[in-house]
Amino acid sequence: MLYEISEKTMKLESEGKKIIKLNLGDPDQPTPNEIIEAAYESMKQGKTKYSSSAGENKLREKLANLHKVSVDNVVITTGSKWAIFSLMFLLLKKGRNVVIPTPYWTAYELTAKSLRAETRFLRTEIGSEWKIDVEKLEDLIDRKTRLIILNNPNNPTSKVIDEKTLDEIVQVANDKGITILSDEVYSDISFVETKSVLDYGNDHILVKSFSKTFAMTGWRVGYAVVEKELVEKMMKLNQITLTNVPVFVQEAALKALELREEIANRIREEYRRRADLACSILSETKVKFSKPDAPFYLFPKYEGLDSERFTFDLLDEGVAITPGTAFGNYREHFRIALTVPEEEIELGLKKICEVLE
Amino acid sequence: MLYEISEKTMKLESEGKKIIKLNLGDPDQPTPNEIIEAAYESMKQGKTKYSSSAGENKLREKLANLHKVSVDNVVITTGSKWAIFSLMFLLLKKGRNVVIPTPYWTAYELTAKSLRAETRFLRTEIGSEWKIDVEKLEDLIDRKTRLIILNNPNNPTSKVIDEKTLDEIVQVANDKGITILSDEVYSDISFVETKSVLDYGNDHILVKSFSKTFAMTGWRVGYAVVEKELVEKMMKLNQITLTNVPVFVQEAALKALELREEIANRIREEYRRRADLACSILSETKVKFSKPDAPFYLFPKYEGLDSERFTFDLLDEGVAITPGTAFGNYREHFRIALTVPEEEIELGLKKICEVLE
Repeated sequence: MLYEISEKTMKLESEGKKIIKLNLGDPDQPTPNEIIEAAYESMKQGKTKYSSSAGENKLREKLANLHKVSVDNVVITTGSKWAIFSLMFLLLKKGRNVVIPTPYWTAYELTAKSLRAETRFLRTEIGSEWKIDVEKLEDLIDRKTRLIILNNPNNPTSKVIDEKTLDEIVQVANDKGITILSDEVYSDISFVETKSVLDYGNDHILVKSFSKTFAMTGWRVGYAVVEKELVEKMMKLNQITLTNVPVFVQEAALKALELREEIANRIREEYRRRADLACSILSETKVKFSKPDAPFYLFPKYEGLDSERFTFDLLDEGVAITPGTAFGNYREHFRIALTVPEEEIELGLKKICEVLE
Repeated sequence: MLYEISEKTMKLESEGKKIIKLNLGDPDQPTPNEIIEAAYESMKQGKTKYSSSAGENKLREKLANLHKVSVDNVVITTGSKWAIFSLMFLLLKKGRNVVIPTPYWTAYELTAKSLRAETRFLRTEIGSEWKIDVEKLEDLIDRKTRLIILNNPNNPTSKVIDEKTLDEIVQVANDKGITILSDEVYSDISFVETKSVLDYGNDHILVKSFSKTFAMTGWRVGYAVVEKELVEKMMKLNQITLTNVPVFVQEAALKALELREEIANRIREEYRRRADLACSILSETKVKFSKPDAPFYLFPKYEGLDSERFTFDLLDEGVAITPGTAFGNYREHFRIALTVPEEEIELGLKKICEVLE
């Protein structure tokens, strides 16, 4: 559903229709110029050839330092999505299952399905501020469970898992010998302290991306921090699928890391302003929402709503959002991505309120 | 083996060792400047966002015109390798098999293996100029056969399938209802007329790349021409794996197509000179080889050779090649890629002859 809306929106736009796009986790900010110039320099230097399927050493080293791991634990991927797909491809076999708290990012389930693996959902609710019930999590695990996927901060709720809950989840995973795959692509621009799965040692998997922190979505570059053996396997899978992320893209990513603090701060503050604005508008309506801990999303609830129908009605009015059903069984919810300027957020939310009434 | 040698060579180089690299299908020519400038312009225009998982319409349209198909039949992929992997992922299930003439490009078999599909090899020999025996091909096909993979021109032999043989292969495939996946990444720079699988209508699959024709290996952009339903499926797989090829890379590819004839002619003539040089050197030795119909490779045979041992001995002497065993059961063969300047070809071949004696 997420991707259908996105392809339909692009089609409407190509036909000349103006759409306020509150549907995509794709920041409207341009990629910072220094990053573009780094890519251009790299291309001109001839970094347009095949290269290592594990990633460029300089970039891997920089990331290893950042996360206090060895360079052998880092593999560069074509976006975090490819890290997730390839890890699931390597770790899940038919008959194995993966536990995922809901609401969840669509790609996790679609990937499991494409691999004929079972998905077990752990429901969280807006009423309890999207808190994960660790006892229920434990009940879902059986001897066929291979992975727990955490998205922290979460897409679509923008909630960060509190430290105590994360401690407990890691404890359960360790006790049962299950690997946590922690997708932390929003953590660098989170509004609140966000603990990483790597803070608990190297038994689990971190997946990150340059997309959100550096406005580099379309560059397709991310990485995973995993045990050395798994780096080898991911590298072998890269060899028969993608070869390598273009070296000039990796050198652009290296430049991004050099400017990390400055860029992340700027992006974080921009989204904090947008989140404050959206919350202040929604707080005057009958829409229920929880305050976001991180960019980019709000995942409000409107009693009795059929969000799929609502989404298509709203698209006719020139506003794209994503229905809650794209993230699990959340028909009364919808996702708003604050990835447009403040004036469009205002217009878009106004239109949403109009159509809701 | 292909990738082991390649990673080992990169490691030796990073340690400061000078290697003559006759091991990689990666042209030494830089990507033409116009293509780099097109990418840079595109980045500066903000084409750094998520986009359609089927590819940019302009690029798809241009390719559709080129191949006289509909735009709905074209999907842009992260290199031709990703087209091949995703097609095999979608079409092969466990228990299905794929027929591949040998010698073959390593990735076909590794991909089939990663999907737990069976690979059936059809041996061809240097003694009969690598001709495919169509009767033997027919014998290999059973009701579990889903695909025949042709690599035309072939890596590593650089032979083009003659028209009569291709006619017969297509006839067999049509009679038995088997799809041909034709990997034609070297065809635009082939030295001889090369018939495409698309010349037989749209029942089969064409996979191509920008890598070889335009010296764009590291950009990772290719495409497939397939039936519309399969485009939809490939697009859905892209949505959960790679999202899209960076738009600025696709706009660079569009520029490449505009300059196609000029660039392809230049590259073809360069490789023709190199092939002539290499053939003239080898013709004075005891090495058997067949004259290449296309870039970039020679796949000679040396009676009694253990090419794996030979490859490692040669690497110690500063020359990288690929042993024949990387392409099937061809221990007495080795692959030379003519992707270095003429003076290095001379030096490399001289060293090869020395070590052989």
